[in-house]
Amino acid sequence: MAGSTFGTLLSVTTWGESHGRGIGVVIDGCPAGLPLEENDIQIYLNRRKPGQSRFTTPRKEDDLVEIWSGVFEGKTTGTPISLMVRNTSQRSKDYSEIASYYRPGHADYTYDCKYGFRDYTGGGRSSGRETIGRVAAGAVAARILETLGITVTAYTRAIGPVEISYDRFDLSLMEQNAVNMPDAEAARQAEAHLDSCRAEQDSCGGIIECVIHGMPAGVGEPCFDKLNACLAKAVCSIGAVKGFEIGDGFAAAKSRGSENNDAFCTAENGTIAKKSNHAGGVLGGISDGSDIIFRAAFKPTPSISAEQQTVNRDGENITVSIHGRHDPIIVPRAVVVVECMAALTVLDLLMADMTSRMDRIQAFFRR
Amino acid sequence: MAGSTFGTLLSVTTWGESHGRGIGVVIDGCPAGLPLEENDIQIYLNRRKPGQSRFTTPRKEDDLVEIWSGVFEGKTTGTPISLMVRNTSQRSKDYSEIASYYRPGHADYTYDCKYGFRDYTGGGRSSGRETIGRVAAGAVAARILETLGITVTAYTRAIGPVEISYDRFDLSLMEQNAVNMPDAEAARQAEAHLDSCRAEQDSCGGIIECVIHGMPAGVGEPCFDKLNACLAKAVCSIGAVKGFEIGDGFAAAKSRGSENNDAFCTAENGTIAKKSNHAGGVLGGISDGSDIIFRAAFKPTPSISAEQQTVNRDGENITVSIHGRHDPIIVPRAVVVVECMAALTVLDLLMADMTSRMDRIQAFFRR
Amino acid sequence: MAGSTFGTLLSVTTWGESHGRGIGVVIDGCPAGLPLEENDIQIYLNRRKPGQSRFTTPRKEDDLVEIWSGVFEGKTTGTPISLMVRNTSQRSKDYSEIASYYRPGHADYTYDCKYGFRDYTGGGRSSGRETIGRVAAGAVAARILETLGITVTAYTRAIGPVEISYDRFDLSLMEQNAVNMPDAEAARQAEAHLDSCRAEQDSCGGIIECVIHGMPAGVGEPCFDKLNACLAKAVCSIGAVKGFEIGDGFAAAKSRGSENNDAFCTAENGTIAKKSNHAGGVLGGISDGSDIIFRAAFKPTPSISAEQQTVNRDGENITVSIHGRHDPIIVPRAVVVVECMAALTVLDLLMADMTSRMDRIQAFFRR
Amino acid sequence: MAGSTFGTLLSVTTWGESHGRGIGVVIDGCPAGLPLEENDIQIYLNRRKPGQSRFTTPRKEDDLVEIWSGVFEGKTTGTPISLMVRNTSQRSKDYSEIASYYRPGHADYTYDCKYGFRDYTGGGRSSGRETIGRVAAGAVAARILETLGITVTAYTRAIGPVEISYDRFDLSLMEQNAVNMPDAEAARQAEAHLDSCRAEQDSCGGIIECVIHGMPAGVGEPCFDKLNACLAKAVCSIGAVKGFEIGDGFAAAKSRGSENNDAFCTAENGTIAKKSNHAGGVLGGISDGSDIIFRAAFKPTPSISAEQQTVNRDGENITVSIHGRHDPIIVPRAVVVVECMAALTVLDLLMADMTSRMDRIQAFFRR
Repeated sequence: MAGSTFGTLLSVTTWGESHGRGIGVVIDGCPAGLPLEENDIQIYLNRRKPGQSRFTTPRKEDDLVEIWSGVFEGKTTGTPISLMVRNTSQRSKDYSEIASYYRPGHADYTYDCKYGFRDYTGGGRSSGRETIGRVAAGAVAARILETLGITVTAYTRAIGPVEISYDRFDLSLMEQNAVNMPDAEAARQAEAHLDSCRAEQDSCGGIIECVIHGMPAGVGEPCFDKLNACLAKAVCSIGAVKGFEIGDGFAAAKSRGSENNDAFCTAENGTIAKKSNHAGGVLGGISDGSDIIFRAAFKPTPSISAEQQTVNRDGENITVSIHGRHDPIIVPRAVVVVECMAALTVLDLLMADMTSRMDRIQAFFRR
Repeated sequence: MAGSTFGTLLSVTTWGESHGRGIGVVIDGCPAGLPLEENDIQIYLNRRKPGQSRFTTPRKEDDLVEIWSGVFEGKTTGTPISLMVRNTSQRSKDYSEIASYYRPGHADYTYDCKYGFRDYTGGGRSSGRETIGRVAAGAVAARILETLGITVTAYTRAIGPVEISYDRFDLSLMEQNAVNMPDAEAARQAEAHLDSCRAEQDSCGGIIECVIHGMPAGVGEPCFDKLNACLAKAVCSIGAVKGFEIGDGFAAAKSRGSENNDAFCTAENGTIAKKSNHAGGVLGGISDGSDIIFRAAFKPTPSISAEQQTVNRDGENITVSIHGRHDPIIVPRAVVVVECMAALTVLDLLMADMTSRMDRIQAFFRR
Repeated sequence: MAGSTFGTLLSVTTWGESHGRGIGVVIDGCPAGLPLEENDIQIYLNRRKPGQSRFTTPRKEDDLVEIWSGVFEGKTTGTPISLMVRNTSQRSKDYSEIASYYRPGHADYTYDCKYGFRDYTGGGRSSGRETIGRVAAGAVAARILETLGITVTAYTRAIGPVEISYDRFDLSLMEQNAVNMPDAEAARQAEAHLDSCRAEQDSCGGIIECVIHGMPAGVGEPCFDKLNACLAKAVCSIGAVKGFEIGDGFAAAKSRGSENNDAFCTAENGTIAKKSNHAGGVLGGISDGSDIIFRAAFKPTPSISAEQQTVNRDGENITVSIHGRHDPIIVPRAVVVVECMAALTVLDLLMADMTSRMDRIQAFFRR
Repeated sequence: MAGSTFGTLLSVTTWGESHGRGIGVVIDGCPAGLPLEENDIQIYLNRRKPGQSRFTTPRKEDDLVEIWSGVFEGKTTGTPISLMVRNTSQRSKDYSEIASYYRPGHADYTYDCKYGFRDYTGGGRSSGRETIGRVAAGAVAARILETLGITVTAYTRAIGPVEISYDRFDLSLMEQNAVNMPDAEAARQAEAHLDSCRAEQDSCGGIIECVIHGMPAGVGEPCFDKLNACLAKAVCSIGAVKGFEIGDGFAAAKSRGSENNDAFCTAENGTIAKKSNHAGGVLGGISDGSDIIFRAAFKPTPSISAEQQTVNRDGENITVSIHGRHDPIIVPRAVVVVECMAALTVLDLLMADMTSRMDRIQAFFRR
């Protein structure tokens, strides 16, 4: 209830602040027998690491993951997996100024209201470094999904006004540019846009899109735990996310039933499919076997070096300018975070679905 | 986990199908001593009742709520409140045809995939009537919030291409038109648009906006249970919702930090406020004392009488045309549902926040 | 969290007071496809019904169960099952006296402390009638377990000083005496003891024993959700239960390791078994394939007609004598309640265990 | 659901195996502003540390706790507190033999059944070292309770056949003997009994009693989350516990209503109290303001060096004799574990009770 645990059957509890000793996560409910070593997780963490491109903070953190429990002789044991990354790059700078006022767009003020005081070094718990736990856990979830033939893939869809074009879509390009766009042309424009933002001491928002492929039909729970509702929560719990949509999303609000409904048809192999996918892979909150497609809107990085007005803890109106190691855009590094939150969500619901039918339960225990 | 329970401290469990004996909800964790009678709930249910306007199904249901437990001598006792509405208007029509195929845009196919079979009468559990339990429970939550000075107000913001204008915004108008729009001019246009949809045997989507006023700063839990994340799940769990955004939402993705950041300032009464509210009342997932403003995108009603292609349970491609008592738009009747889900969400987090500080806990028990 | 919901994957929410309109339960997470009709549940409810013997209250309640949702064409649909029993026998007697003071051994005082006031008619929510919801839900769980080859059987082991003897143990006798003892001789002694208690306007406690047969090895979660811990909570949540033990229980505290350890051995059919069962079927909180055996200690019925000292709501010391429809012993009618709580507990953990191994998950989804 | 998380508002997640890199716990929901340093926790851990007396394993572990997050400038921040103890004394002995068979009374067999294989070094997750996380978290809970005037005190009540006498009861003696008994004479007898057990290569069980003093009346939730039910689960989740009772417990089953009922009376200061405490401080599952008194039965240490029969993983019947660093009794070191589980349980329910009444909620937010 206090907010640091996510999931029911596969349950993930994160801890740690930006400038504390480290950041970590405990994964409970990971099935036994999954081959797992630190490098499986490291490759995910490397994707969110700072210093990867000229648009990410030059802060140098190796962010090396350590497995502290739950793995024995190279395989998960079924008991809690404790993962940890040490904080190594906290500069012993003077935080007394930042402690004294509320940065616009940040959680300084709300943490003070809630808790009476706050860890003001580097954003404390509300820092982007909190996502390390999400990514470490999501890497494990993604591996499990893979063994079931399910892949989760996110990428940058838009940066400020620049959107990718599906005519030029090529996923293999994503890792080759600084903005994680699967479209070389859009990436070039986006980089130019970011350069101009930075030149103006400003920052910029964007959109991440995510596709889940290979989901069996029938996953998701009716009513309050619909697959799309669980994804919405998972994704909106990432700092800086201000919107979520699935399938046609907000565009569906402008469309008509005759356009928005996806016709069912029988595919060549005899399975039932849909001719289109306006629904984004979910009907009535339950997966329909098509790709699940959703998008998340990220606000611009709130830390900008341009001058801003705010108040200090004494309530005095002041003007500030925030300097430090900040990305001009959150989106490229958040791509893997979205992917990981989606993997955790989908795996939890997939496990829950194992108990939905008497015949399947009986077959399971008749093993 | 099976999806029919929502909330932790104030926990709501709904049950019932469209054409079963009734629809109900059990509210657990309602504080003791709240004056409550059936009419307090009925006024909310009347707002989602069919037959209210020419754009809602002529199905006549009185939808009279009955309190079966948890209220004694006019006050809540602190124990579970069981609320129930009997289904009275199920027509004994022949459902054998609808049972045989999968309606596009509906949950027929996914329920079959999940459960092996389905209640095909009137949509069963995936019917819009499922929201009766949400509204009945939300009415209780809204009453509690009111006593704390918090109001939750939703309205129709857009229907198809027609949006309200804030220049003409007048909340008192909302109940005076068939589309729940707080703008008489937009309402007229929207009604015309709906008439043309209906003439073409088609349906249409729309957007609901909701404002929560009076929230103290500091509510919401960090990390996974951010106030906006919990609202996102609550709202996206309503059938037909395809998108959620808070504050500037998807528009924030196109803006810059210098535009999107809200400057803090000290108000005349000495309290800290924000000069603008791009954030929508939430920073770092925690309420900042400003109004909380969010929007939900609804897809068009999937039941349309125009011809559609689909498959039957034998996998044969067929053409169908769905007749029956269906609204050409979901939005107007869903306004109160959005309001109720928001009230339930906010109250649960408000209660959780009571334990966030040692000094407040100590003062509480020193009473 | 407010206490009326039990279980995670199979989740049960009860509602209702002794003298309200009815008592009910919502079962969420019941797998689809289970044949279920009202009579399947009624036979369980009949076992706890008053008026069954001369030691149970002559209050006449038919306690007829009604299925309000979740069953379609004779089978469970996978959506919430709402079950209800109407209260029909509330005598419109004058409760003003009982409202004015705190009955010893009852929850009157504690409910007033917690909630500020209480439903004083017939015990309100703390009445024994609250168990109707547990039994109705447990009947469904027991049916599911049966299809998996698992049976749950409880019986009276002791009434006051009278214990059954395993030399005379015959389960078929249980239903043939007024005290649900599987031992005719002990039953006779127990009935005589109860007659003497009643003659002295007194009541008496007892012990219920429960055996779960057919449980596969490997069920139960390590650490906090051990099978025995979950059973302990389930059983101790029944009003009047003051103790729980599994296997040798408190006697194990007096024994030595060489006596208490159960030797493993290979049975004739090649499966691994234990030569004895001091553990009661659980090792490290996980089922070991032997019978699970536990006991619950019940206190005497607190309502006695002998004079007692207490205080009234004004804090004055008074003397009271409680008359009304009360059993001199709780145990015989509670046998089925214990059985049902055990069934709910075991089924929930059995379902949770489906996700404990990668190989089994992969096989499940490869179906 | 996977068993490593305990509590709802104050939620505790433990991780770690006996011979892994370390053991830890994440506490989520700890209120902000509690002064906390490592030594506050260390004094609790020292009480369960091995090597404290001649009846505890000579295994030398310093068990030094490290705070990794959630504390800033000496106070809790309200965000997750990550605590960790490194394993330093794992002997690199040959475990291949112990890996090959199932130790009687241990979880070897059941873990293999559940997970397909197990961490066989030192018991893995089912080791007694798992309780380090419980104690570290419980120390924090106990500190919070203290500030509210609530103390939790456990002690050894019985070792094998030796029970303490309340005529000689002196809590200050508890720390002065090797068995944590508050009775010098009983302690002498218990030590003699343990010496004889050890001489015979055997072990012995015992009983721990716990008293919670200062609890306000009204804490605990009706129905399934009764205070006693939650305590039962908490305590029975400790490895080796086979029974739980509150107040008169199993003795109540033999008593009569006239003996077992506690008369209410008005104390000199005008407050309502009970003349006796057979109930153990709980009526209807809710605290009544008296001391809460419960007991836990522990089985004998299963590891004994006497010869035992068992089977190996190939199913062959073999004879084994278990050598290693094992206590002949679990009880003395478990005293602090019981105390800590009680503190965690009571604090969680105390927090939950803050939302039970409208008037109190209104007063809280009117602050």
